[in-house]
Amino acid sequence: MERVRLVHGNGGRFSHELTERFILKYFTNDLLAPLHDGAQFSVPSGRMAFTTDSYVVQPTFFPGGNIGKLAVCGTVNDLAMNGAIPQYLSCGLIIEEGLPFDELELILSTMGDMAKAANVQIVTGDTKVVKKGEVDKIYINTSGIGMIPEGINIGPNRVKPNMDIIVSGSLGDHSIAVMGERFGLELSDTIQTDCAPLNHMVHAVLQQVGSQVALLRDPTRGGLGTVLKEIAEQSQVGIKVNESQLVIHDEVQSVCDILGYDPLYLANEGKCILVVEPTVTNQVLEILHSYPEGREASHIGKTMDKNIGKVGLQTSIGGVRLVDLLGEDQVPRIC
Amino acid sequence: MERVRLVHGNGGRFSHELTERFILKYFTNDLLAPLHDGAQFSVPSGRMAFTTDSYVVQPTFFPGGNIGKLAVCGTVNDLAMNGAIPQYLSCGLIIEEGLPFDELELILSTMGDMAKAANVQIVTGDTKVVKKGEVDKIYINTSGIGMIPEGINIGPNRVKPNMDIIVSGSLGDHSIAVMGERFGLELSDTIQTDCAPLNHMVHAVLQQVGSQVALLRDPTRGGLGTVLKEIAEQSQVGIKVNESQLVIHDEVQSVCDILGYDPLYLANEGKCILVVEPTVTNQVLEILHSYPEGREASHIGKTMDKNIGKVGLQTSIGGVRLVDLLGEDQVPRIC
Repeated sequence: MERVRLVHGNGGRFSHELTERFILKYFTNDLLAPLHDGAQFSVPSGRMAFTTDSYVVQPTFFPGGNIGKLAVCGTVNDLAMNGAIPQYLSCGLIIEEGLPFDELELILSTMGDMAKAANVQIVTGDTKVVKKGEVDKIYINTSGIGMIPEGINIGPNRVKPNMDIIVSGSLGDHSIAVMGERFGLELSDTIQTDCAPLNHMVHAVLQQVGSQVALLRDPTRGGLGTVLKEIAEQSQVGIKVNESQLVIHDEVQSVCDILGYDPLYLANEGKCILVVEPTVTNQVLEILHSYPEGREASHIGKTMDKNIGKVGLQTSIGGVRLVDLLGEDQVPRIC
Repeated sequence: MERVRLVHGNGGRFSHELTERFILKYFTNDLLAPLHDGAQFSVPSGRMAFTTDSYVVQPTFFPGGNIGKLAVCGTVNDLAMNGAIPQYLSCGLIIEEGLPFDELELILSTMGDMAKAANVQIVTGDTKVVKKGEVDKIYINTSGIGMIPEGINIGPNRVKPNMDIIVSGSLGDHSIAVMGERFGLELSDTIQTDCAPLNHMVHAVLQQVGSQVALLRDPTRGGLGTVLKEIAEQSQVGIKVNESQLVIHDEVQSVCDILGYDPLYLANEGKCILVVEPTVTNQVLEILHSYPEGREASHIGKTMDKNIGKVGLQTSIGGVRLVDLLGEDQVPRIC
């Protein structure tokens, strides 16, 4: 079996071979082809979004995806959460010597597929190889840029009291899929990562009612609970959430009950939170429901002008639970 | 001694603390402050460059610098090598649990200092923490963007026969400084990394004679030899280099002689190769010599219309040595 060696990262002949054999094969595009120290392209004048994420998920492969799928979708989604149309991505690989070429190829081909699905180009990259034990298999950084269409202005400063809060679907699927694989649990096949590019769905919402969308966030690390608390603090509003409106798949809830996880704090990789004017809530839900990744979208709560900085969860049994930022947790390397 | 813990990467309360205590302290700017999933800013219409690099240097601290200095300067320089004016950088940290806060702070403060020196802003970032043994102390990815001024067109397709090749200074200092530290050699204090932001010097050249500059490259991993061979192949020219014009400090040459390294293939972090029209060679050298980081700049060779794809080194003893891409090497994690 062929494996990645240290010399594949030394910048010389073997680096060229690796690049030509795998990178150029799966990321093919005119901007990447010159293999200069960066990509050059034209941009129109306007507002741009720029974002970065490193992916260290363990295990590298899990039900419904792998680290490469996360790396493209995660950065595409961060751009979409800025209201931008994702366009160009970078790819920085840090590989442990000994990684089988087969695994590398599967990861890179998935990245190529996801880039196509999200309609973005991976235009520049870098590959480092380190010794056994100096990284766990492979870590990937993707950064991305995209233009923000005129009239779109997304940010915590736009959130006001009496806005509606929508979540595009179920909670916790990604975390439980990864944890199940990590611990070798024999989980139902229906538990899969929700990892998906959300940019087309989000763009459809923004095209129709963009000026009435105040904030977009994807509840990844820290989960819905942490993001809502951040919104309450940054935007200086109170937030009320109705627990009965949260969608949590039965299998996910069962695993949470057994392992003691709270779905409110589990990472998602294909979900977004939308804070919108109440006049467009139904229209937004209709658009989301028309996409597979938004079919379970739900209006979960409201912003308020009282209890500033606080998030209250109206529980099914009638009480109110205060939601704080995630504190100590037991789920490292979930993305 | 306070140390980084796994919870500092979980996206919750402890992540916020780390960000506020260190990231916002050293990377302060208005675009980073909102701490959204990315930065938003206005760009003019025109050509942009976009580049990425992951830094895994070992050891993290070495004579004249640390991984943070490399991470900012390396990406700034890659943008400069595209003829762009570096503007915005991202910072993706992957930290091993247990890293002392002191070391993290020193790295981030150096990044802040270098960003100021290069006149760029670090506007978006991401921090992951992994378990002991899943990364070696800290790896950093920086990506960057910048606009390319009108009239500047840098690329391998611009290189033609009978152009002059200039190198902005001495070879091998960075590699020898890092290797000396890694192996605990008691080297002279004069051996230090050459790591520095080159954008101001390069910009001065481009402002005066930009249209006569065909290609800019920084000879990092793979060294001068590999980059010249890449230029010969990509630009379909022959290259003749005069060994007597290469600047190699005596201390560096001595360590190379003892350890069996070839300075032609050692990584540099503060040098650039310029391929220019012969009419401007003297003017370019004059500009370079006026900057501390270019004071030893030297006209080292020419491109030719024969021996296409080949690089010949005219040695001091009268022979010609063919220069190939770096093959097997023994210097991993040099940047």
